[in-house]
Amino acid sequence: MSSSSQLHTSPPVIGITLGDSNGIGPEILIKALHEKVHEYPFLPVVYGDAALLNRVAEKLGAAVSFEAVPDYPATSLGEGSVPVLECGAKVVAYRPGTEDPDAGANAALWIEEGSRAALTGKVNALVTCPVNKDVMMQGGCPYAGHTPMLAALTNTPVCYMSLFADHMRIVHITAHLSMRDAVDAVKTERILDAIEISHLTLKQMGFQTPRIAVAGLNPHAGEMGAFGHEEAEEIAPAVARARAQSICCEGPFSPDTVFAKMAEGEFDLVVAMYHDQGHIPFKLVAMDEGVHVTLGLPFVRCSPDHGTAYDIAGRGEARHDSMYAALQLAARWAQFSTTTQEVAK
Amino acid sequence: MSSSSQLHTSPPVIGITLGDSNGIGPEILIKALHEKVHEYPFLPVVYGDAALLNRVAEKLGAAVSFEAVPDYPATSLGEGSVPVLECGAKVVAYRPGTEDPDAGANAALWIEEGSRAALTGKVNALVTCPVNKDVMMQGGCPYAGHTPMLAALTNTPVCYMSLFADHMRIVHITAHLSMRDAVDAVKTERILDAIEISHLTLKQMGFQTPRIAVAGLNPHAGEMGAFGHEEAEEIAPAVARARAQSICCEGPFSPDTVFAKMAEGEFDLVVAMYHDQGHIPFKLVAMDEGVHVTLGLPFVRCSPDHGTAYDIAGRGEARHDSMYAALQLAARWAQFSTTTQEVAK
Repeated sequence: MSSSSQLHTSPPVIGITLGDSNGIGPEILIKALHEKVHEYPFLPVVYGDAALLNRVAEKLGAAVSFEAVPDYPATSLGEGSVPVLECGAKVVAYRPGTEDPDAGANAALWIEEGSRAALTGKVNALVTCPVNKDVMMQGGCPYAGHTPMLAALTNTPVCYMSLFADHMRIVHITAHLSMRDAVDAVKTERILDAIEISHLTLKQMGFQTPRIAVAGLNPHAGEMGAFGHEEAEEIAPAVARARAQSICCEGPFSPDTVFAKMAEGEFDLVVAMYHDQGHIPFKLVAMDEGVHVTLGLPFVRCSPDHGTAYDIAGRGEARHDSMYAALQLAARWAQFSTTTQEVAK
Repeated sequence: MSSSSQLHTSPPVIGITLGDSNGIGPEILIKALHEKVHEYPFLPVVYGDAALLNRVAEKLGAAVSFEAVPDYPATSLGEGSVPVLECGAKVVAYRPGTEDPDAGANAALWIEEGSRAALTGKVNALVTCPVNKDVMMQGGCPYAGHTPMLAALTNTPVCYMSLFADHMRIVHITAHLSMRDAVDAVKTERILDAIEISHLTLKQMGFQTPRIAVAGLNPHAGEMGAFGHEEAEEIAPAVARARAQSICCEGPFSPDTVFAKMAEGEFDLVVAMYHDQGHIPFKLVAMDEGVHVTLGLPFVRCSPDHGTAYDIAGRGEARHDSMYAALQLAARWAQFSTTTQEVAK
């Protein structure tokens, strides 16, 4: 990867939604902020509950404190102090591991405000702590989780669920579909759209000439039509059209070797044809430090690649690697991609 | 894994078919036999061309020589000398990387003899060097590769393509089918059969209580029917029926985490619902030392997990890790599973 002339001089502002306050969100956020060695520096603004966060920080002995602020602060609050926009949320008791509809309602409220701030440039990127979609819906939220909610709030027709780690970047053309429906969704237009958005995203992240591989759908990429025709009929045309736009893109490759090729550095990103084609290799290689990225939204959105983990919430045991990586990826991406913005525009 | 009371006192005899003599077969076989530190000792009998093998061994400077014998030898030929049954094969010039129909015909002849010997107990296991199925068919063989040929020669109705490495053992219910056809093949009877054969195989390999996991078909194993019904309708009933037979078997698990669970030691084997579900994680984790295993045949058959590699044949560069692992797995499996047999019965 090479440096870019668009590099910011001031660190980007990252909006962080607390998610379900009874999940592991508070812990992993505090631990990640406590870890001071940031390769890509950033200014955090949290959408959450300052008192709850301070209580958890104290319990963890973390050198970070939270301060409720009425509006986006014009400058950093100073070393170790993090501004929190509470957005009129209800005061919810901290009961780790509990399904509390009020906590679900707060989570939705914070996502709404974070999304609005990212759209209007008040923050340069959004990082979201885990929510439980059932609890959020019990709290009155009409959306089944982050991605449909963010898509609706931003009028985004198609989002691509993506997983990023150091040497593994995977963009899925579909996510939560049955295998039957996923096979039906392997269509040229969708694949081409995913390639184009992948290319744009990597460029925004500072890759001068992103190298994209496209996986086949069938074993051995169909072995010349011996078992499956989607490679010839749907995937190869998408690759050809992307190449006609001067996108550095190859494929379709045999799905059982393309991820190893990427891990060895031959490609920067693989476009996967269905959820598990990408999730199986990613979770095997980058289980802890992987970042979930939503492509297609009008702003940068990253999140840790796991859920609320109610079973271990409140114990201080949750690993914050993925949250830390999400903040770093968002900071790097926002730093390269946006025009310089000040806090509290 | 625990020891078994069926353990042989004399090492098993392993029949090794040379495959396409213009591929990397001769090299990887010689290098693997040259490597003397065998955890599981065995007596090799090669189906191939002794002169060709000696020529390649000399070129490689390997401390192993080959001797053409008219019939199965009654005893070992002595340190470093390997008996070769040529089976009346044509003399074929050694031209590495060349597609030679006569080499294809020889490969088929050796497989036929090896299979017959394994069926009649003249050898305790069969290890096959790579063939090129097109070249074999050009030489007059009616079968498209090892598996269909061995299935036909042994009247085996269903074989299961499997991949074995130290901490990864994967049995696929189907192999070379399009994704559409593979989804249609996710049926209770086939899954149950694969579980039963997997259980039996692991028992034969010395596992006292094999722990088998069954993967789901759909993302998150269908998430309670939200995206896909095969888990409830086809997979869960197979697991229940296996458990009713006292097989230690769990599932269906989310496909994107079950392979990591196995890699961490939670399970001994995963039954995968389609080719790439198993091949993607296996090739990422065990690219070089993986062994291809055919389950369902009436004898032990292992092979290296790669093809003839014409592009590098004859250069002495081919890695023999997978061939070595195939010989060791076959030796261990044969040692535990069969009754004691002498060479030249």
